[in-house]
Amino acid sequence: MKASRPTIADVARAAGVSKGLVSFALNDRPGVSPESRARILAVADELGWSPSVRARSLSSNVSFAVGLVIARDPEIIADDSFFPSFISGVEQVLAPRGQSLVLSVVGDEHLEEATYRRLAAERRVDGVILTDLRSADSRVPLLREIGLRAISLGRTDVDASAIPAVTLDDAPAIHDAVRHLVGLGHTRIAHVAGPDRLLHAARRKASFLHAIASSNLATPTVIETDFSAADGARATAELLDRAKRPTAIVYANDAMAIAGLGVARRAGLDVPRDLSIVGFDDSAIGRYIEPALTTVATDARGWGFTAADALLRLVEGEEVADIELPPAQLVVRASTATAPSEPTADRRHR
Amino acid sequence: MKASRPTIADVARAAGVSKGLVSFALNDRPGVSPESRARILAVADELGWSPSVRARSLSSNVSFAVGLVIARDPEIIADDSFFPSFISGVEQVLAPRGQSLVLSVVGDEHLEEATYRRLAAERRVDGVILTDLRSADSRVPLLREIGLRAISLGRTDVDASAIPAVTLDDAPAIHDAVRHLVGLGHTRIAHVAGPDRLLHAARRKASFLHAIASSNLATPTVIETDFSAADGARATAELLDRAKRPTAIVYANDAMAIAGLGVARRAGLDVPRDLSIVGFDDSAIGRYIEPALTTVATDARGWGFTAADALLRLVEGEEVADIELPPAQLVVRASTATAPSEPTADRRHR
Repeated sequence: MKASRPTIADVARAAGVSKGLVSFALNDRPGVSPESRARILAVADELGWSPSVRARSLSSNVSFAVGLVIARDPEIIADDSFFPSFISGVEQVLAPRGQSLVLSVVGDEHLEEATYRRLAAERRVDGVILTDLRSADSRVPLLREIGLRAISLGRTDVDASAIPAVTLDDAPAIHDAVRHLVGLGHTRIAHVAGPDRLLHAARRKASFLHAIASSNLATPTVIETDFSAADGARATAELLDRAKRPTAIVYANDAMAIAGLGVARRAGLDVPRDLSIVGFDDSAIGRYIEPALTTVATDARGWGFTAADALLRLVEGEEVADIELPPAQLVVRASTATAPSEPTADRRHR
Repeated sequence: MKASRPTIADVARAAGVSKGLVSFALNDRPGVSPESRARILAVADELGWSPSVRARSLSSNVSFAVGLVIARDPEIIADDSFFPSFISGVEQVLAPRGQSLVLSVVGDEHLEEATYRRLAAERRVDGVILTDLRSADSRVPLLREIGLRAISLGRTDVDASAIPAVTLDDAPAIHDAVRHLVGLGHTRIAHVAGPDRLLHAARRKASFLHAIASSNLATPTVIETDFSAADGARATAELLDRAKRPTAIVYANDAMAIAGLGVARRAGLDVPRDLSIVGFDDSAIGRYIEPALTTVATDARGWGFTAADALLRLVEGEEVADIELPPAQLVVRASTATAPSEPTADRRHR
């Protein structure tokens, strides 16, 4: 019987330190006291630990850092639970391995190119994670030009083989959401969408329109927003102000759905009696509000974890294929119910 | 009359580019095309622009990056709106100046020291922003040992002169919140606090207890949490389960207050008729939910902006004194109202 090769976890256990510290010590990274380093190396030696081929192939010319450039209004990042959750998943991979996340929020696409060029020229990162893909995204040729490795969230629509993608299909869950509402008798279902220039927002909207068409409903109202709670509130007020207002609204994120719920209540409507609401994200807050939010769960954290892990493997010279995560799931809670049997358009004017 | 010295903004206007690009070009940072760089330099020359003493004193030995090491469970960062808002303020300063934010979320304090040592040893950042100060914080001597400049949010309780602080006093707003509730007839007011080991959470709790004592009320119930929405829900359930349950709860952040509101509703209580709720943060979601959340506004974004700006000045060799931001403000909305006139303890069992 061949003894299994000791892992970093074995060394950590025997030395009585964290796996992170062992990894730092074995990779000769700073941050470990000389005493700890000596002890860890002695324990590793004793256990017969040897670095993997992958670790040995790491040249000293790497940055031990990963870049994330977000081209959105910084204020919107604070509303939308996607990025904090996503970043928490990325950090779960990076922190224990002594890797850094270099984060830039550039407000809009103006400074974006300059920021990528700077990250590459200054060798500040070994690779980047591309989020918020756009149609014919200019970052794909840019990254090739400046020689920066990347993993994308979702597949680019230009030269899709150039950048390995971590994908998560949300179309089935959007279809499920519409079917769920149609099953409850809703016929006027609106969509509060994200910015059309973002592939994922446009795809979510297309899935919604396709699901509505499959259900033989008339073309629904779609309002485009910037993903902020404020814009979600504005869109909701606009929808509720219509003569034939919708009896259900599918939002492109939870923050807008929760803001919309407040707007509906203030307009004198009961949710879900007069208006059904579906979010997108499965944020912690959405679980606890009352009525608890029916939403689409996407596992932003797992997406971050998987993308960061794939990027590190890519940086270490591995071939990385596209990775498909389990599809998003509709989570039915209390904010959706049977459609109101007759128009309640006047109720909010009482 | 002496002509005023042209600024980067003047150069940007004349060259028809952003201030960020001008800053990149004038500081000879990568990310600007040769053509743009030539044009910007020509315009700057024409306007008689010259770099400030401060900019000229910048040695080429700087990292052009700022570190933020957060020792919290990554999942909690996703719930709590403080960090996303704070980071958005930091980025507003960094992005246009071509500076990077190196973000590490280390889960707990275990990997924290190793991470700071690594950032310093690898010259990855020019300085760090210290958040979540703890009593006798071990990071103060650590940063001195490794020679890393820092700005702290709040003042350290060890060697307070070592690290310039950006402070924001929340005690008056907590007092205002308690006075507001006492004025509404509440006598059983509980506090759902953050972790005691964090100076700001402990100080918020002390302010609360002091305000209660000043109002001649009996010692109130305080439940410690980890700041997560889930823990806020748990604490609320525990409070509502008591024979003499509180008629008002002051929470240490909005995420827990919003989760608590849901728990109260599910227990059959009306907010604010049966239970008044006060948050802390002034998150966007809190403004839009119904009832809109009475909360304490702290300007996390401005805090990030000011701290990042102070750190860059420190890195550039300026003397930086402590900066006191305007104090937090109580924002009264709809989640607080007159105390119930008689015990409603049984109502939730109907």
